[in-house]
Amino acid sequence: MIIVMKPEATEAEVDRVLNRIAAKGLKPLHMPGSERVVLGALGDERVLAELALDGDPYVESVKPILAPYKLVSRELHPHDSLVAVGGASFGGNRFGLIAGPCAVETEDQLLASAQAAKAAGARVLRAGAYKPRTSPYAFQGHGPEALELLAQVGRAVGLPVVTEVIESGDVELVARHADALQVGARNMQNFALLKAVGAAGKPVILKRGMSARIEDLLLAAEYVLAAGNDQLILCERGIRTFETATRNTLDLAAVPVLKAKTHLPVIVDPSHGTGRRDLVAPMALAAAAAGADGLMVEVHVDPPTALSDGPQSLYPDQMIALGKQLGAVLGVLGRTL
Amino acid sequence: MIIVMKPEATEAEVDRVLNRIAAKGLKPLHMPGSERVVLGALGDERVLAELALDGDPYVESVKPILAPYKLVSRELHPHDSLVAVGGASFGGNRFGLIAGPCAVETEDQLLASAQAAKAAGARVLRAGAYKPRTSPYAFQGHGPEALELLAQVGRAVGLPVVTEVIESGDVELVARHADALQVGARNMQNFALLKAVGAAGKPVILKRGMSARIEDLLLAAEYVLAAGNDQLILCERGIRTFETATRNTLDLAAVPVLKAKTHLPVIVDPSHGTGRRDLVAPMALAAAAAGADGLMVEVHVDPPTALSDGPQSLYPDQMIALGKQLGAVLGVLGRTL
Amino acid sequence: MIIVMKPEATEAEVDRVLNRIAAKGLKPLHMPGSERVVLGALGDERVLAELALDGDPYVESVKPILAPYKLVSRELHPHDSLVAVGGASFGGNRFGLIAGPCAVETEDQLLASAQAAKAAGARVLRAGAYKPRTSPYAFQGHGPEALELLAQVGRAVGLPVVTEVIESGDVELVARHADALQVGARNMQNFALLKAVGAAGKPVILKRGMSARIEDLLLAAEYVLAAGNDQLILCERGIRTFETATRNTLDLAAVPVLKAKTHLPVIVDPSHGTGRRDLVAPMALAAAAAGADGLMVEVHVDPPTALSDGPQSLYPDQMIALGKQLGAVLGVLGRTL
Amino acid sequence: MIIVMKPEATEAEVDRVLNRIAAKGLKPLHMPGSERVVLGALGDERVLAELALDGDPYVESVKPILAPYKLVSRELHPHDSLVAVGGASFGGNRFGLIAGPCAVETEDQLLASAQAAKAAGARVLRAGAYKPRTSPYAFQGHGPEALELLAQVGRAVGLPVVTEVIESGDVELVARHADALQVGARNMQNFALLKAVGAAGKPVILKRGMSARIEDLLLAAEYVLAAGNDQLILCERGIRTFETATRNTLDLAAVPVLKAKTHLPVIVDPSHGTGRRDLVAPMALAAAAAGADGLMVEVHVDPPTALSDGPQSLYPDQMIALGKQLGAVLGVLGRTL
Repeated sequence: MIIVMKPEATEAEVDRVLNRIAAKGLKPLHMPGSERVVLGALGDERVLAELALDGDPYVESVKPILAPYKLVSRELHPHDSLVAVGGASFGGNRFGLIAGPCAVETEDQLLASAQAAKAAGARVLRAGAYKPRTSPYAFQGHGPEALELLAQVGRAVGLPVVTEVIESGDVELVARHADALQVGARNMQNFALLKAVGAAGKPVILKRGMSARIEDLLLAAEYVLAAGNDQLILCERGIRTFETATRNTLDLAAVPVLKAKTHLPVIVDPSHGTGRRDLVAPMALAAAAAGADGLMVEVHVDPPTALSDGPQSLYPDQMIALGKQLGAVLGVLGRTL
Repeated sequence: MIIVMKPEATEAEVDRVLNRIAAKGLKPLHMPGSERVVLGALGDERVLAELALDGDPYVESVKPILAPYKLVSRELHPHDSLVAVGGASFGGNRFGLIAGPCAVETEDQLLASAQAAKAAGARVLRAGAYKPRTSPYAFQGHGPEALELLAQVGRAVGLPVVTEVIESGDVELVARHADALQVGARNMQNFALLKAVGAAGKPVILKRGMSARIEDLLLAAEYVLAAGNDQLILCERGIRTFETATRNTLDLAAVPVLKAKTHLPVIVDPSHGTGRRDLVAPMALAAAAAGADGLMVEVHVDPPTALSDGPQSLYPDQMIALGKQLGAVLGVLGRTL
Repeated sequence: MIIVMKPEATEAEVDRVLNRIAAKGLKPLHMPGSERVVLGALGDERVLAELALDGDPYVESVKPILAPYKLVSRELHPHDSLVAVGGASFGGNRFGLIAGPCAVETEDQLLASAQAAKAAGARVLRAGAYKPRTSPYAFQGHGPEALELLAQVGRAVGLPVVTEVIESGDVELVARHADALQVGARNMQNFALLKAVGAAGKPVILKRGMSARIEDLLLAAEYVLAAGNDQLILCERGIRTFETATRNTLDLAAVPVLKAKTHLPVIVDPSHGTGRRDLVAPMALAAAAAGADGLMVEVHVDPPTALSDGPQSLYPDQMIALGKQLGAVLGVLGRTL
Repeated sequence: MIIVMKPEATEAEVDRVLNRIAAKGLKPLHMPGSERVVLGALGDERVLAELALDGDPYVESVKPILAPYKLVSRELHPHDSLVAVGGASFGGNRFGLIAGPCAVETEDQLLASAQAAKAAGARVLRAGAYKPRTSPYAFQGHGPEALELLAQVGRAVGLPVVTEVIESGDVELVARHADALQVGARNMQNFALLKAVGAAGKPVILKRGMSARIEDLLLAAEYVLAAGNDQLILCERGIRTFETATRNTLDLAAVPVLKAKTHLPVIVDPSHGTGRRDLVAPMALAAAAAGADGLMVEVHVDPPTALSDGPQSLYPDQMIALGKQLGAVLGVLGRTL
């Protein structure tokens, strides 16, 4: 860690900070320059975070040298992690497609949508039982009944299922029915929930929050691993920017940035990432080309009647066409769907 | 609601959409133009949200005419609401100052910080027992013990207390010790928590999320009112933008925008909104000048040793100086601290 | 255009607005609802822009139905436009690769970099003579001499050249040496420059501004076409967001959004769009998969010594490897490099 | 400057970088840590910028210690600069109000608007002759004629005038008619224009770009000072964020941030900063409370007929009321209008 002192810091102030560093067991360095005194602290700088040196009135800035996360970092764990959801695996040469409707609505809707997903090459079925919605007057999901229906349809079509959990109190129930637990963008920093899914013994898909920097996503992931669960998949799903032509701005560069920093698999959700049906296929192909380990795509048997996310849900034939194109692009990049 | 059809929509498609509008009990309008067919739907357009007309492949765009919230809107409730926290009231001519340390650390730290807050004119004491922290390795708060200490120090200095609750399961316990419940920025769209505080029978301070548009904040507030609790105070605390000189970008224009749309009191948190001690006072005065109904400010008896938010915590003498300046500015604007 | 009146608007105010609409030759519509009076204006709503109805104190909001641009729109010109730069063409099935160093430094540097570009399959050579730099102390480009050197090296390697022009006064000189003129992100709304390149008789590459919405980019393009030049290529190069892991956030969804709205070719600059050498290839492939009509990539014979943009410049062998991968991905998508 | 080497950097790579630092005349420092080798460079680090060490494949990151600007910095010039526009002065205890219509439309419009500005306490009249407009079909300003009219009306009401210049070629003409030159937000990084106004011998008002960080604004200012003109006023006018309730997000914290870093006066434009007439007064008062040295406000004799910016233009009586409130707030803060 590098600590830049303010120009007005006296020698006594500098010594005080050096002593605080040494008291934590780190080796302090003193580098007086012509315009600023710069201090260094060699050792595990995460220990220094407790000192909160940036709260000191004589400290101008604090510049960390090391990443604030450990367990998710590629430095400790250089090889790609593989995460299995039912029989589907994410993170190796196998590219994993997750598809299904936004929400569990009815048995017919879910079954027909699941069949389209499977026909397109999906390895995991997705559908929501609990829907976090911006408005209290919007459809909030069918809850526990929907969990049962999802598990039943998953078995019927032969696909493992993933579904969102929105509170720590629901984790046990959801884990009983689902093969993987999804933590949505709005809950990426719901730390109680992160701790709970970290203890649930099921793989987790963690979506990037709308205003989360990549480092924030990795720290949220660190919560799950620190709670004992390393079966974690990260999901880029768009961030909020000034652009209004799309629902979110899909930050595809986050895929190779994340792959460089972490051993965890990284997938992309082009449905929420764009909010528009016509953009899902181009962004899905782009995600594959950018090196993603998988996709999460919304498909609905009849999008205009969908209770949520109709505008971004593919029609079944669009889903199947996308599966074919994906296979071709992945093929030339040395991966298989 | 205005529905713009795509240029390729045939008469049959237009009729289909008109019929869906009529089936919901609204009056459909047909306005054929030279380049687009435009449809209207007169009546309670919140009913139309269920139709999700923007999921229709022949619909180009849907433009709502009315706000999607009702209970928080000034249209239904034109006069300012007053919300009382203990003996302090927010929303009228009385400007409410909430102050205290970021977190409950020790009895001495809390008591000394609370005395500084009171000396500066604070009417409510704040301090966190549960701290949502970006890193799992950062101080997470002292939990239930801190709640008791906070209540005890509040009584000792004669101030009601507010503290953050971060999960629905904790609401009952927190409500037992605190005079008001705070929902933090990261939980603004934790809808389970919003419903729980809506049922808790205590006033609530709801902070704007880092990526929340003003409309999103109002819809989050609508969750609380819809759950039966109209003792709600909104808090602007900065949004995430590309600017890195400050921790967040404090959006002070949100104050008059909110005051125009809602009857609820609106306060400002210049501490989190800037992240820098030297910016707290100017932004606190600016918030008062912009028409805020109060402030939430962090003060700590010894900021360099604070376990969290040291860089943005005022020293006691800075807090007291701010209280004086605030009184002067509020005075010429016809309000009192 | 749809005009929503404020609740307090009286009949007289409504009539006044209706009369202003009719006076402009448009057909006014009156749609009184239960909570708001809504007005419509049928006809060329661009005429209405002059009325600036949103400046009226009784108007709540104005919702345009049609896009504010015409010449760039696919509605008037449904087929893809082809733009030729020297012998290279953009916009059809042929995907165009533009490559070269950020800046013209020396003859050796430029020639070796140009050879790498050509070996990778580039059809156009890029290099800057005028460099818009954030700091006045940074290298500003070698100016007119660099223009001559660029033209000479272009002839030597057999590639047409494109270079940036940063002021209207330089357009004539730059157009004398270059096969195409580039307008950079910082100048996307330098309207004097847009008008000048619109009159220059050379193809133009227009980069999206860092804070430009897609509609702003299309309106900037409209300036060029309105000035008489339809040889225009649009370039997505990243927008400024809160994410700091990359120099900009490359908005690849802008590619299919633009392709749906305009007939103009759309290319992508993954070098400026990410600012990091290791991200250029994945984002270049992703851009091709997303449907871009070409790429603009920075390559330098010795990046660590580059006078500008070293961190994002590819080494020659990386450029050549990228060319091969691009060819493979384009191949399965039915396009050729 | 601190240079963090990548973990894979060998001793030879470290030595190479140390030698490059020494070759520039700076003192290199070597700080080997357990996980990273960190290098330092003591001396004028602006010289190091030329080395572009972040382009080196063995360098992980480069962390500057000093600000990249000099002339605008308070470190070299600790006292506030005063800038005079005609008889009005900015930067001391005197708070300067600039007001007037967005554009020069007609003599009557300009005169009546100028009288309202003066009655409200304005010391400088503003109005645009050249209007940079997003759409080529929008009113572009009356050009040279408007310059003459503006100068004439300024003399008539007894106020110095400021007006925008949008290209370097126009600087001489505009400087002949105006007492100060404004560089607009879209041209903040039009470096040719910055150099030209730097040589024009008239005071300059430089507006922050929509996507400019505070450091970018200071570097743009550095261009003007480096070109020989230190009569410069900075203007915060809002940045582009995801919030759509306002035209821009007025970043008032930029005022104290700038005042801490630079000796130049800082004013605020609440008209463009919000885009809404009802928000101008609260944000104007907030800017004054935040420590701004002045304001630039749009007022129009009849806003609904304004050719540009009608929605954000005050009515004359609103302008006069604002002047009174401003005087009161400034009074208690020890300043005068």
